[in-house]
Amino acid sequence: MEADNAVVAAVRELVDILPAGVVVTGAAEMEKYREDFAHDGSAGSPLAVVRAEDATQVQKAVRWAARHRIPVVPRGAGTGLSGGSSAVDGGITISLDRMRSITVDPASQVAVVEPGALNAEVKHAAAEHGLWYPPDPSSYEICSIGGNLATNAGGLCCVKYGVTTDYVLGMDVVLADGTLVRMGGKQIKDVAGLSLMKLFVGSEGTLGVITRAVLRLIPAQLAGATLVASFPSMTDASRAVVAIRGRIRCSMLELMDGVTIKAVEDWRSHGLDRSAGALLIAQSDAPGQACAGEVEVIRACCEAAGAAEVFTTTDQEEAALFVAARRNAFLAVEQRGSVLFEDVGVPIPQLPDLVDGIARIAEDCGVEIALVAHAGDGNTHPLVVYDASDPASVAGARRAFDGVMALAIGLGGTITGEHGVGRAKKASLPDQLGPDLMALNRRIKQALDPDGILNPGAVL
Amino acid sequence: MEADNAVVAAVRELVDILPAGVVVTGAAEMEKYREDFAHDGSAGSPLAVVRAEDATQVQKAVRWAARHRIPVVPRGAGTGLSGGSSAVDGGITISLDRMRSITVDPASQVAVVEPGALNAEVKHAAAEHGLWYPPDPSSYEICSIGGNLATNAGGLCCVKYGVTTDYVLGMDVVLADGTLVRMGGKQIKDVAGLSLMKLFVGSEGTLGVITRAVLRLIPAQLAGATLVASFPSMTDASRAVVAIRGRIRCSMLELMDGVTIKAVEDWRSHGLDRSAGALLIAQSDAPGQACAGEVEVIRACCEAAGAAEVFTTTDQEEAALFVAARRNAFLAVEQRGSVLFEDVGVPIPQLPDLVDGIARIAEDCGVEIALVAHAGDGNTHPLVVYDASDPASVAGARRAFDGVMALAIGLGGTITGEHGVGRAKKASLPDQLGPDLMALNRRIKQALDPDGILNPGAVL
Repeated sequence: MEADNAVVAAVRELVDILPAGVVVTGAAEMEKYREDFAHDGSAGSPLAVVRAEDATQVQKAVRWAARHRIPVVPRGAGTGLSGGSSAVDGGITISLDRMRSITVDPASQVAVVEPGALNAEVKHAAAEHGLWYPPDPSSYEICSIGGNLATNAGGLCCVKYGVTTDYVLGMDVVLADGTLVRMGGKQIKDVAGLSLMKLFVGSEGTLGVITRAVLRLIPAQLAGATLVASFPSMTDASRAVVAIRGRIRCSMLELMDGVTIKAVEDWRSHGLDRSAGALLIAQSDAPGQACAGEVEVIRACCEAAGAAEVFTTTDQEEAALFVAARRNAFLAVEQRGSVLFEDVGVPIPQLPDLVDGIARIAEDCGVEIALVAHAGDGNTHPLVVYDASDPASVAGARRAFDGVMALAIGLGGTITGEHGVGRAKKASLPDQLGPDLMALNRRIKQALDPDGILNPGAVL
Repeated sequence: MEADNAVVAAVRELVDILPAGVVVTGAAEMEKYREDFAHDGSAGSPLAVVRAEDATQVQKAVRWAARHRIPVVPRGAGTGLSGGSSAVDGGITISLDRMRSITVDPASQVAVVEPGALNAEVKHAAAEHGLWYPPDPSSYEICSIGGNLATNAGGLCCVKYGVTTDYVLGMDVVLADGTLVRMGGKQIKDVAGLSLMKLFVGSEGTLGVITRAVLRLIPAQLAGATLVASFPSMTDASRAVVAIRGRIRCSMLELMDGVTIKAVEDWRSHGLDRSAGALLIAQSDAPGQACAGEVEVIRACCEAAGAAEVFTTTDQEEAALFVAARRNAFLAVEQRGSVLFEDVGVPIPQLPDLVDGIARIAEDCGVEIALVAHAGDGNTHPLVVYDASDPASVAGARRAFDGVMALAIGLGGTITGEHGVGRAKKASLPDQLGPDLMALNRRIKQALDPDGILNPGAVL
C-alpha cells in the first residue's frame, strides 16, 4: 500500500513537471499505446504515457524516471512487429508521436527530422526539393522515422540503396540519466570519436531516446521499369533471385509465395495469378537504355530458373499495383488468422535452402506460413498464421516460429534482418549471438543504462 | 631494476607462448613499426612487435598483455595520417601485416579478408569475379583493410558509394581480455542485438583488434567520363562543387588548390596548368547516355562558377593521369617540407567558407597550406607545410593546424572526416564533441577496455 502511494505521488510529480496534456494517465486513453503491431502478448499496463512535445520534455520525463527507477519505453508510431515498444507494467511510455517536425536543407542535402515524423512525410518533404530519402519499409506510410532508427529499418529499395543506418548523419539522443547528446551533424563524413551514433541506430530504445536526426538525402529516384515473373515454386523463384543478384543491382527484388498471393487476392484483388507458386517483383531504376538492359538480365535469369510467365512494364501506375500487392501482404495475410511475424535472413546463396526449410517447418508444425521476402537481400518474412482460439494451433505456430529462427541461424543467417528483436524474438537471440556476444551486448547496455530503466525486457 | 626484470621476464614469456619469429624484439627491426605516416612525434619505443599470423596468436598476445597490464597498439600497414598506430613506451605493437588472406565468395557477393590485406589487393581479388570493393583512400595501393576499418576510411568514390562502414557485413574482433567475438556474417541485413560491429569500425584500435572482416562487394564500376576544370580560385571551384552536389551524384568530385598543383608538377609533371588557382576533377559512372548528361550538368555548374577551362574525356588512361595527380598530392606536397595532415569536413554549403578561412589562417600563421579535397563530401585535406628545423615555422604550423580544426568546428563540421583522431588531433576532440559526448565516449571505452590497455593515448 505504501509502495502504491509512492507510485501515485511519483506520477503526480510527473504530471506537475510537464505541461498540461502531455502526461496521459487514463487507462482507456493509454490503451492504444500498450502494444505494437506484433500483439505478442508481452504488453503490460503503463503508469502513464508521456506525449512529449520536444526534447526538453523527454529529458524531464527521463530524469524523473531515473530518479524513481521507473522503466521507460520509447514509442514511435507503434507499427513495430516484434513487441519492441510494448508497454511495461509499472513503467511509463514516452510517445514521440507529437514530435514530427521536418526541415529539409536542400543545399546540404539533408532532412532534420523529429522522431514522430512518418517515413512517408520525410519522403514527401524531400520530394518537394527533388530529393529522396530511400529507406522504405512496407509500412512507410504509417511508421515513424524514430521507429525506423530504433530498428535500423530496411524496406524494398534497400537492396540497392541500403538501410536506415546508411542515411543517418546526425542524431540527438536523451540518455538514461536525462542528458541530451548531439552526435554528428550535416557533415557527410565524420570519424571524430567512437561511432556512437551507429550504436544507437537499431538499439530499440534500450540505450536512449532518439529526439532528432539528420538524414542524408539523395537526388530523386528515376522512374524505371518493373518486371513481374510467376514461378511454379518458391524454390525456383529464389534460384532466380540468386542468379539476378550475382549479376546486377536491382532497385527492388521481392518475392511472394502462393499463400501470400491468394491472401492478397482474397483481401483485395490486384489481378495476380492465384495459381502461381511464387511471384517475383523486380525493378530497375538505371537511367536510359541501361534500364532495359537490366530488365533483360532479370528476364533471362527468371526464364532460366523456370519462370512460367514474365511481364514487364514501364507504366508507373501499373507497376505501382504490383508493388502495392507486395506492400499489402502483411495486412492481407492477417485476414487469415492471427500472425507471428518472422524476419529471418540468410546469405543470398542460402535463400533456396531457407525457402525449402520453411515449407518443411510449416508442414511439420501443421501451420500455414505465408512467405514474402526482400529476396534480393536474403531477408524473408515468413508469416505464421494460426488460430488463437485453438491451443494446438497456438503451440504449432510457436514451434514453427522458433523453428524458422533456428533454421536461419543454422544457415549462417539472422533471426531478424530489419524488424528488430524486441520481445518476440528475445528468446532466440542467444542462439544466434552466443555467450560472448551476448555478454558484450550486456556490457554496453550496462555502461549506458546502469539502472536498466530503458525499455527493460526488450532485446536483452 | 626489479620492475625492469619483471618486464624482461614478461617479454620472455611472450616470446615463449608464440611461435618462433612472431615476436620481434630487436630495436632496429622494430623501428619501422614505431610511427605511421603522420610522423607526429608521439611514437615511443615498444617492448616488442608481435607479427601475428592468425587470430589465435592475436588472442594469446592480448591475453598476455591483459595479464601484465601492458599496452597494446594494433597496427595495419602503418600508412595512417594521425598517429593512431604510434608505438607506446612499455607497450607492444601487434602488427597485422602477415594476416592478409582474401577469399571472395561471388555468390554471396562478399570478400572475407584478414586485416593485413591491402585495400588494392581486395579490389583486385573482387575484380577477378567482376565485383568491386568501392572504398578507395588515396593510399589504397599501400594501406591495409584493417587500418581502413579502424579509421572508417573514405576515399575518392565515397561521394557516391559511401565509406568503409557501409561495406562491413561481418567482423571478428579480439577484445581487451583476449576473447574473440564474431559479429555479423555474409547476410546483408542483420539487426539482431546492438550494432556492435559498427562501433568497432572507426574505433582506431581502442576497443579491440580486428582480425577478420566480411566485406560487401558490388558489381564492377562502369567506365565513365572525367571532367577536369580549372578555376582562378578555390572559392570559385568550391562554389561549383556546391552547385554540382545539389544536382547530381558524381562518382568522384575532387579539388586541388594552386599550391598542390605546383607541388604535383614540381614532383612529377602530370601536365596540369600551373597557373590555375584550383583544379576540379569530377567523374560520372552513370551508364550509357546518362553519363554524358551528368557531364553536361558538371560542365554547366563549373562554367557558371567561373571556370577558366573545362576539359572532358572518356579515355580511361587519360583520366587516370588526372586522378593519379590527385592521389599523389600528399607525396608531392611532402617534397616541400614537413607536413601536418589535416582532414577537416563541413556541411557542403559551408565548403567555400572553409576554403576561404583556411587561406586566411595560412596567411595569419605565415605557413603554406596546400589544399586537396574530397570536395563532394565537404571533406578537405589542408596540408600544412613547415620547416621542422625552424622553431618559428614549427610554431606557425602548429597554430595553423589547430586553427583549421577550430574553423571546421565553428562551421558545424568535424576535425576528421576519414583519417581518424589518433594522437595528432586528440587535443581538439573535446572542442568538437563537448563534455557530454566525451564522457559517453569514455564510458564505452571503460566498458570494453576497463584497464585501458588498448591503444592508450589515442583518440581519448
